[in-house]
Amino acid sequence: RTLRIGLIPGDGIGKEVIPAGRRILEALPASLGLKFEFIKLRAGFETFEQTGAALPDETVAILKSDCDGALFGAVSSPSTAVKGYSSPIVALRKKLDLYANVRPVKSVGGAANPIDMVIVRENTEDLYVKEEKTYDTPEGKVAEAIKRISQRASSRIATMAGEIALRRQKIRSAGSPSIHTSPLVTITHKSNVLSQTDGLFRSTAREALSAGRFTSVAVEEQIVDSMVYKLFRQPEAYDVIVAPNLYGDILSDGAAALVGSLGLVPSANVGEGFAIGEPCHGSAPDIMGQNIANPIATLRSAALMLEFLNEEEAAARIYAAVDANLEEGKLLSPDLGGKATTTEVLEDILRRL
Amino acid sequence: RTLRIGLIPGDGIGKEVIPAGRRILEALPASLGLKFEFIKLRAGFETFEQTGAALPDETVAILKSDCDGALFGAVSSPSTAVKGYSSPIVALRKKLDLYANVRPVKSVGGAANPIDMVIVRENTEDLYVKEEKTYDTPEGKVAEAIKRISQRASSRIATMAGEIALRRQKIRSAGSPSIHTSPLVTITHKSNVLSQTDGLFRSTAREALSAGRFTSVAVEEQIVDSMVYKLFRQPEAYDVIVAPNLYGDILSDGAAALVGSLGLVPSANVGEGFAIGEPCHGSAPDIMGQNIANPIATLRSAALMLEFLNEEEAAARIYAAVDANLEEGKLLSPDLGGKATTTEVLEDILRRL
Ligand SMILES: CC(C)[C@H](C(=O)O)[C@@H](O)C(=O)O
Ligand SMILES: CC(C)[C@H](C(=O)O)[C@@H](O)C(=O)O
Repeated sequence: RTLRIGLIPGDGIGKEVIPAGRRILEALPASLGLKFEFIKLRAGFETFEQTGAALPDETVAILKSDCDGALFGAVSSPSTAVKGYSSPIVALRKKLDLYANVRPVKSVGGAANPIDMVIVRENTEDLYVKEEKTYDTPEGKVAEAIKRISQRASSRIATMAGEIALRRQKIRSAGSPSIHTSPLVTITHKSNVLSQTDGLFRSTAREALSAGRFTSVAVEEQIVDSMVYKLFRQPEAYDVIVAPNLYGDILSDGAAALVGSLGLVPSANVGEGFAIGEPCHGSAPDIMGQNIANPIATLRSAALMLEFLNEEEAAARIYAAVDANLEEGKLLSPDLGGKATTTEVLEDILRRL
Repeated sequence: RTLRIGLIPGDGIGKEVIPAGRRILEALPASLGLKFEFIKLRAGFETFEQTGAALPDETVAILKSDCDGALFGAVSSPSTAVKGYSSPIVALRKKLDLYANVRPVKSVGGAANPIDMVIVRENTEDLYVKEEKTYDTPEGKVAEAIKRISQRASSRIATMAGEIALRRQKIRSAGSPSIHTSPLVTITHKSNVLSQTDGLFRSTAREALSAGRFTSVAVEEQIVDSMVYKLFRQPEAYDVIVAPNLYGDILSDGAAALVGSLGLVPSANVGEGFAIGEPCHGSAPDIMGQNIANPIATLRSAALMLEFLNEEEAAARIYAAVDANLEEGKLLSPDLGGKATTTEVLEDILRRL
């Protein structure tokens, strides 16, 4: 099988980690029967400055017509609002209907506080619909944004969370070590204030997860503020978390802090038959060009993309090679307290593939 | 001076901690020249079940006409939406125009990771305007909520944050030990997605903090998701945080996790010449009636209320007595790993007053 993968480095360290993602895909053992073709695509703030569009139509068109999946690096945000510029990854998620943002956060080896959770973030609506307006009043400007929550999007993201909980349980039953023994989905909301929007998310998610095939999945719920609290006090309590877009965004950065670095945390933007792997970190202009960015978030994002393209064996190879590097702990990038370069970390992981 | 203080226990452990707040005010040394009159007021879910109103008009009227300040415990939220019920504390903040929610989070003694920050949360708008609607579409229900950010509210909350930063610096200069050496305000937002609403918050806060009297205050800004990350990785980096309502809600629970328990973290809802002290924790139905709730968040909230009523000396007495209890670490409630009851913790602190 040949997979056609779009490569969208974006800005900053995106340009250093996306090539690493390409390298690991190319280095997968031939025995897996996988071939890759790569298509370089543009997006980001630099692209905006050069072409006037942060997400050129061509990039979207090629992803749609020519690609099975993609890797997206990171993009810089201008430090003050720039007319016409808006985040290309947010636009891409909507244009390709990549309705789920899946973010696994897992500690490796004998961590003092073992963590093994997946945040399943709704990826198309909530405040990310970006419907805003500003008006003048006698007391100054007022701006409003719409937070939109639909039954349809809430239902499909909760269903995805349930499927992921079942899949994780299957992998555990097959002998993969884990701190969890049974599948659990925790629904995040703030329905004590937002009774209609978050109330709809909550009740729809509950309903979706009460479907027959999820009878083995326990369902809990938690208010977002107390969830951030508990995330830091008892992170081992979470298996799969399902959340509206913005809460998912915030929770996943919080969870990343627990495993020591955003440089470790991958994500996949997932739609019907399409997935874009994307490291959770940003473009990190402060360290760009120094070859010290941690490539692991991108390598794991490549694996996660493969999982959602049904190449689970290839994905498992990448995860195992990354885990072996981290468990040995000799070649670590500076965000993890090490001194290894991006290239050294990558080469070490390729050797273990 | 006689201060008239409304007491609103609410539900659950609110009924156990508010009496402790009253006790500490009554126990303040006579030399401070402060007298208190207490007025018991109703609000909460139990009140809703009994009277049909979670926040009776009478409670609001008496607070407005008869009180200098108040202590609010906590209220239970029904586990599914109940028609006509909505959070009384959110309503109270708006009805009394208590535009700032001030939440200091500080570690005590020789903590491994010393923390000393104040979260200054806008308290009247953002998604808390609770303007929601639900409509049907061919694909199911859709619900929308308004996130409203005004220049007026953003400006006054940023000004309050600046004043608090200056006041903290003054106390430090007077010899109070701290991890900070100069005043800093960090502005929280998500203007990379919400360019108009959070963009307005950001630019208005920057402008307010550029006023002449804040020249000694450094101003930084941070996107809310990366702020949650950094809150856990480098909490010592924060002095004063100013945030729109919802981000402030989430960040303060996160910060509470850093000092070990929500049971330690106070807040004050502050308006012109009025303040309501309120522990950050909830009504905790799981531990109610057992006399094991930590009273410290309420004791500190009573002190914080006094600070905003310009009784700084009385406030300092309470803070010192609480800190002494924690530093000794012998009589701690179960949330801190101890075995002391609410009463024992309170008595120990009263002895130290
Ligand atoms: C860059 C930003 C628009 C984006 C988001 O908010 O989704 C990022 O924080 C993420 O988590 O992918
Ligand atoms: C109970 C709830 C409505 C409230 C809020 O969201 O403001 C609480 O979380 C708080 O922080 O005081």
